[in-house]
Amino acid sequence: MTKYCAAAAGLLSPKTRYNELMPFYGGIESGGTKFVCGVGDRAGKLLARSEFPTTTPPETIGRAVEFLQEQPCTLAAVGIGSFGPVDLNPSSPSFGFITSTPKSGWRDTDIAGAVRSATGLPVAFDTDVNAAAMGEALWGAAQGLDTFLYLTIGTGLGGGGMANGRLMHGLVHPEMGHIRVPHDLAADPFPGCCPFHGDCLEGLVSGPAIEARWGRGETLPAAHPAWQLVAHYIALGLATWICTLSPRRIILGGGVMRQAELFPLIRAEVRALLNGYVEAPAIVPPALGGDAGVLGAIALAAR
Amino acid sequence: MTKYCAAAAGLLSPKTRYNELMPFYGGIESGGTKFVCGVGDRAGKLLARSEFPTTTPPETIGRAVEFLQEQPCTLAAVGIGSFGPVDLNPSSPSFGFITSTPKSGWRDTDIAGAVRSATGLPVAFDTDVNAAAMGEALWGAAQGLDTFLYLTIGTGLGGGGMANGRLMHGLVHPEMGHIRVPHDLAADPFPGCCPFHGDCLEGLVSGPAIEARWGRGETLPAAHPAWQLVAHYIALGLATWICTLSPRRIILGGGVMRQAELFPLIRAEVRALLNGYVEAPAIVPPALGGDAGVLGAIALAAR
Repeated sequence: MTKYCAAAAGLLSPKTRYNELMPFYGGIESGGTKFVCGVGDRAGKLLARSEFPTTTPPETIGRAVEFLQEQPCTLAAVGIGSFGPVDLNPSSPSFGFITSTPKSGWRDTDIAGAVRSATGLPVAFDTDVNAAAMGEALWGAAQGLDTFLYLTIGTGLGGGGMANGRLMHGLVHPEMGHIRVPHDLAADPFPGCCPFHGDCLEGLVSGPAIEARWGRGETLPAAHPAWQLVAHYIALGLATWICTLSPRRIILGGGVMRQAELFPLIRAEVRALLNGYVEAPAIVPPALGGDAGVLGAIALAAR
Repeated sequence: MTKYCAAAAGLLSPKTRYNELMPFYGGIESGGTKFVCGVGDRAGKLLARSEFPTTTPPETIGRAVEFLQEQPCTLAAVGIGSFGPVDLNPSSPSFGFITSTPKSGWRDTDIAGAVRSATGLPVAFDTDVNAAAMGEALWGAAQGLDTFLYLTIGTGLGGGGMANGRLMHGLVHPEMGHIRVPHDLAADPFPGCCPFHGDCLEGLVSGPAIEARWGRGETLPAAHPAWQLVAHYIALGLATWICTLSPRRIILGGGVMRQAELFPLIRAEVRALLNGYVEAPAIVPPALGGDAGVLGAIALAAR
């Protein structure tokens, strides 16, 4: 019963319709601040896009569903990459829910179920960072890699990726931002800003943590000494994950990483920390840029 | 051309020989201090066992080969779980080698190749900890789990396990002992004993690190305050790996963990560190006990 966009729009001859069927997919990047919705094809081409602020679950999910229903084509499936924590266990009664989030009004929200029942489409569901990782695996900086990490450093620090060719799940899913790293309180007396753990990695290097120390976040000039300290902490996290997972590549995205000067600083610190004992993988920016999130959600549906 | 032990030993009737063929496998636990060799069946039953000190590669590997050749049965395959670093990439020219080890005389040793050419058998090869993890997955404390960790804390700290149902490899393989954790030098001025990283986790909690601080290692009494500090560092490592991999279970083995009092201390510290943000998995001892290493090597061959 699946129909396809170009065919539905009457752009193809009847013969082409039959021979060159090209399914289209919907994607929802469900973020704590905004939602980004899109429609794309199997080649990672984004054909439509819409974004709006995250308000209440009924209103925000309703706008996402409306966007999908307004499309001139019928979609084959929808992917959702969501902020979390989320339940990724398909045999759990709360599969597809945003679960224990501190975000007001969103605790125990059945986002995948709401989209599935409103659209009647199959829904693929994962964390926002695993979705972005899937997008990079299909169309970006992680093509052909079975084991890699995707990290986003902005309002928070989230991590996902693939281990042995599949997205990282496990008992729940990774919450990489919350690892503890050495923190020299004499050199950096900031106690960290994570409400759960104080000076976990997220509590030291997220945008709000940078702003709390230096009055500005991602807009600090490239020459500001803050970046050396931030690079040091990020490198401590990367060295930990290199020793743990041995990823073939590490992709660093998010608002903080738009400070491109961080990349060489981080690479040098990682080399110094590993001290020749294990090999460091390439550390690169995402190839899909600002649309990584919504393209990732589309990739979940396409995969 | 494969023959089987019970049949070769004439224990079965000709008919049984044909109907109830049960292959036997050889296993070599290649450790930096000693080698343990064994023969086992598909059910994880150890039928023969031998151990001897690790001397030079020709002598030690020679003794292992001799043990396998002396068996009354012909083996279907041999598994090797080795100290490392090792090369696990099947398309690499040094696949099956112990590579950049600091252990004198063992650098760039083609252990898998030597066993393969001397025995003519297929050889499965992995790290010692991944082998032990495979043993626990087939016959021990990790049965039915797709994502779990196996850690051994003794002379060093090694970690392995499965992610998404397969052993953790990646660019090289995990070297979990070398992660950095917060280290309060005022409370614990010991600088760590890792020759590469000083106070990485291995440098703080290995047997030699405990001995360097308190004069004795694993034999310190259960009430000694050392164990609270050791539990704290181990818990920092476990909390990091829980946030990173979300394992369904964590198995802790090795000489240091024979101090059973550590388990409740570690579990309490992990709960305190996670602070309710993510769920902690069960933290348990290995089910295969002292034979986990050699049974793991047999498991590699059987799998």
